[in-house]
Amino acid sequence: SLAAPAIAQESPKVRWRCTSSFPKSLDTIYGGAEDVAKYVREATDGAFDIQVYAAGEIVPGLQAADAVSNGTVEMCHTAAYYYVGKDPAWALGGVIPFGLNARGMHAWLYYGGGLDLLNEFYGTQGLHYLPAGNTGAQMGGWFRKEINGLADMEGLQMRIAGLAGRVMEKLGVVPQQIAGGDIYPALERGTIDAAEWIGPYDDESLGFYQVAPYYYYPGWWEGNLSLCCYFNQESWQSLPENYRSLLGTATRAATTEMLAEYDYKNPQALRRLIDAGAQLRAYPQDVMNASFTAAQEVYAEINGENEAFKKIYDSMMQFQSETYLWQQVAEYTYDTFMMIKQREGALAGQQAGGNQ
Amino acid sequence: SLAAPAIAQESPKVRWRCTSSFPKSLDTIYGGAEDVAKYVREATDGAFDIQVYAAGEIVPGLQAADAVSNGTVEMCHTAAYYYVGKDPAWALGGVIPFGLNARGMHAWLYYGGGLDLLNEFYGTQGLHYLPAGNTGAQMGGWFRKEINGLADMEGLQMRIAGLAGRVMEKLGVVPQQIAGGDIYPALERGTIDAAEWIGPYDDESLGFYQVAPYYYYPGWWEGNLSLCCYFNQESWQSLPENYRSLLGTATRAATTEMLAEYDYKNPQALRRLIDAGAQLRAYPQDVMNASFTAAQEVYAEINGENEAFKKIYDSMMQFQSETYLWQQVAEYTYDTFMMIKQREGALAGQQAGGNQ
Repeated sequence: SLAAPAIAQESPKVRWRCTSSFPKSLDTIYGGAEDVAKYVREATDGAFDIQVYAAGEIVPGLQAADAVSNGTVEMCHTAAYYYVGKDPAWALGGVIPFGLNARGMHAWLYYGGGLDLLNEFYGTQGLHYLPAGNTGAQMGGWFRKEINGLADMEGLQMRIAGLAGRVMEKLGVVPQQIAGGDIYPALERGTIDAAEWIGPYDDESLGFYQVAPYYYYPGWWEGNLSLCCYFNQESWQSLPENYRSLLGTATRAATTEMLAEYDYKNPQALRRLIDAGAQLRAYPQDVMNASFTAAQEVYAEINGENEAFKKIYDSMMQFQSETYLWQQVAEYTYDTFMMIKQREGALAGQQAGGNQ
Repeated sequence: SLAAPAIAQESPKVRWRCTSSFPKSLDTIYGGAEDVAKYVREATDGAFDIQVYAAGEIVPGLQAADAVSNGTVEMCHTAAYYYVGKDPAWALGGVIPFGLNARGMHAWLYYGGGLDLLNEFYGTQGLHYLPAGNTGAQMGGWFRKEINGLADMEGLQMRIAGLAGRVMEKLGVVPQQIAGGDIYPALERGTIDAAEWIGPYDDESLGFYQVAPYYYYPGWWEGNLSLCCYFNQESWQSLPENYRSLLGTATRAATTEMLAEYDYKNPQALRRLIDAGAQLRAYPQDVMNASFTAAQEVYAEINGENEAFKKIYDSMMQFQSETYLWQQVAEYTYDTFMMIKQREGALAGQQAGGNQ
């Protein structure tokens, strides 16, 4: 290796603020922004310094993208579907009901043209978009009473937002938008019958199992959730090329990191929840099928009136049929076999007296 | 944003050589090293410049780690299991038969203590290890004749290496080690009956379907393959902290990138292979079960005589039973539902007249 003395580089001092849509208590998802900031700060020896602010410190969590658009802050870390009220097309940078899983999302974003299509849309909002972090497939929510079939969904007051709420409405569910901290008392009082949140690790901290013990899966509205950074376009363009490249690298790294962190923490949390009395249940097939059909109706409605949505949606859906063709071969068959061994208690870790 | 004039940074000029274990023709897996080099070069404005060399340009592909140990080059990009001849423990940084899938591997590496355990072992070889890229679950190889059950495996000459070869031997298979370029003629002449390689995209280029049309899945010896960089320990320690951090970020980013690239390219290649006459087949369940049992026997043998292997293996296997507990809930159930819809031709991309 040839090491020469330090020389002056094009590394201007840049200090940015990043507003997160998440509280620090959701440490994994909030940690996505901290990961990006850390990777960038360390690589530049502190020259490019991003300070992360939790939801509410600068603006409320659901206004993160607006704070970036209007230049209050240079960037945010958020979930794209929080902004479907502006335009349903926003959701496509996060996830849509019966959309892609995490592997499919990343393949579509980075190789299937997704990133360019999304940036074409977000560009009209004054933003540059980079995916940053993923939760994997989420859970389907907590219910006060067991759901034995589609009829049991009728009339339920459920805390569920965005496009998923619109799909649920077609099943007779009454969607409610309630902030995280207000869900527990609403479930306890019976003001709502059910609530979806994220997955075992994050759900555990809010204690839902104590008041709504039936824990359903899968969260068909979040087969993955791709978190993202939005950058103010002028701020983004003001960066030197090396810093822009570094943000691309740091956000990709944050994706590996967050998924790994959830995949490590969720099994432990799931075990604790079950020990504490949570009742794990699969959604009945008629609920899954009716939800799928209802989602296609919602998409037909949106596509009929929203060209921006349709253009991105068509690309994502074309890739979806492609990716599931492949994933069902080696990946799924391998996992199926291993899960059968897990249920038999035959895995080496189980034979060694580990968890059953 | 506060932008100050450029200042001198601790960014010494460093020029490194990285030897890859792969030829440029395997562009995705070879590209992992190029991705790491690009991310690092761009972030440092060229100050940290890693030149990547294909297999054979400096040393043969299977000697990449040795070239790093002995200081011929500062780093390599390779598959850890290539070096099981030195010690089976090497394999654990890549994948072992009936090991983790990609999600499980990353969770174990970054959060389950895997990275530290592996570096404790690789440190004894003068190396520092960072995972960099993943293929996902691989295919189970190409066969000249159909395999209808365990009896059909008996006496087969199969190109398969390392621990998987040792497992296959217990099934009566005669494992052969043959370089990539020699597989096709050996299959054509019938010198061997079967050969495993990677997955659709990489396998397609070698044309195996023309001489051994039965394409089996899953590759139970590669539920994932975590590629990696090894760094010469002295070279690693000579780097300033910011460059070490950047390599950690760049390798995590390369993992997102390579998996996305394979997941994008494999479905297309699978489709082309089937159109060209490849016969897709699942391994019969008795072959899967006998292989699983044989693998446990191999691990019992190794664990009985190899403390370094056992320590890492036990940690990996303890996490394996944990991760499959969780993955079978939301993730697997969601994918199962979507794959059923895919087989029904009901996905939006299929309904729109896309691929069936």
